[in-house]
Amino acid sequence: MSRLNHPIVEQSFAIIDREIGDTGLGPGEYAIARRIIHATADFEFARLLRCSPGAIERAIEALRNRTPIITDVTMVKQGIATLVGKTFQNPMITCIEQVTGAEEGKTRTETGLLRCFERYPEGIYVIGNAPTALLALCRAIESSPVVPSVVIGVPVGFVSVVESKEALERLSVPQIRVERRKGGSTVAAAIVNALLVLADESLS
Amino acid sequence: MSRLNHPIVEQSFAIIDREIGDTGLGPGEYAIARRIIHATADFEFARLLRCSPGAIERAIEALRNRTPIITDVTMVKQGIATLVGKTFQNPMITCIEQVTGAEEGKTRTETGLLRCFERYPEGIYVIGNAPTALLALCRAIESSPVVPSVVIGVPVGFVSVVESKEALERLSVPQIRVERRKGGSTVAAAIVNALLVLADESLS
Repeated sequence: MSRLNHPIVEQSFAIIDREIGDTGLGPGEYAIARRIIHATADFEFARLLRCSPGAIERAIEALRNRTPIITDVTMVKQGIATLVGKTFQNPMITCIEQVTGAEEGKTRTETGLLRCFERYPEGIYVIGNAPTALLALCRAIESSPVVPSVVIGVPVGFVSVVESKEALERLSVPQIRVERRKGGSTVAAAIVNALLVLADESLS
Repeated sequence: MSRLNHPIVEQSFAIIDREIGDTGLGPGEYAIARRIIHATADFEFARLLRCSPGAIERAIEALRNRTPIITDVTMVKQGIATLVGKTFQNPMITCIEQVTGAEEGKTRTETGLLRCFERYPEGIYVIGNAPTALLALCRAIESSPVVPSVVIGVPVGFVSVVESKEALERLSVPQIRVERRKGGSTVAAAIVNALLVLADESLS
């Protein structure tokens, strides 16, 4: 039981625990998967979640150090604002809000992402929507001496999404992904919220 | 092709059209289902979507008349703000932002929902997260001479969610639901965005 979870969230977790069966996930991974399932009612996420070795510990440490959280879109920020406010008050920056328009040949989220990476290369990056932003982040990481604390790469959809997740997988940066086409703002927010609860619990 | 859809959205729709097979849905319902699938990469929503007779037409009419859109949580508002801005500029009101705390025995979203219903009983209600808000809305509708233009009832999760959707189903108010446990802010926003595109197309 976390002080941060509403009783309804804990009730929901108890139902998921009863129904999910054996996942083969470690405790940290399971906490993340369970929160995604709570937010989507979709048990498939337990099979699609991928955390690189040490990524959860790195994310917890970065959250506790008040590392800025950079999200691609505003919905992700909205989804984490309450728990960030109750825990470590990390600065939250949204890529799409950094720019009023797109640069030639780029989406607006991608343009904003590159702006953010110049300022916060060591940030916690959370991409819940735009595969173009994740692809741009991967290219930026490849040529940067400083890399993000962790990348949460869970864009959703049918165009460039799988490719963007594969590009992230090829990098040695600490990362949490949802394989294939699924993901989204709700999923991205659930992952960050699960990590905030883990970071808060490890303090108590 | 809608003037409101980014080319990537249209590409995504084309992939869904190729993969989905026969759904048995009418054109309006299919437009809604396709936008949900675009936003979730989850084809199951084509089987879970329920639109009461005439609900889509009522929603289109209400959107074009700039009827206020009342959402339970901020994430839903964020998800529709761009297309509302490009089309009919409906006022957008978020229940949870109407109140600083919950009344005795109620959740904060429920308290805010009841506040909104007093002011805008004929609004377009979009519940993407909180079953308590949907249950409170259903009870308020039962004893009100004036009812919402349409209720989009798609809370997600494991506690009171199915019950809240069943309560909505029993009412004769125009409604769009996702059956069972699935739903969420992303799904709610996708439904409103699909309706905005339909409302915009029917003008041109």
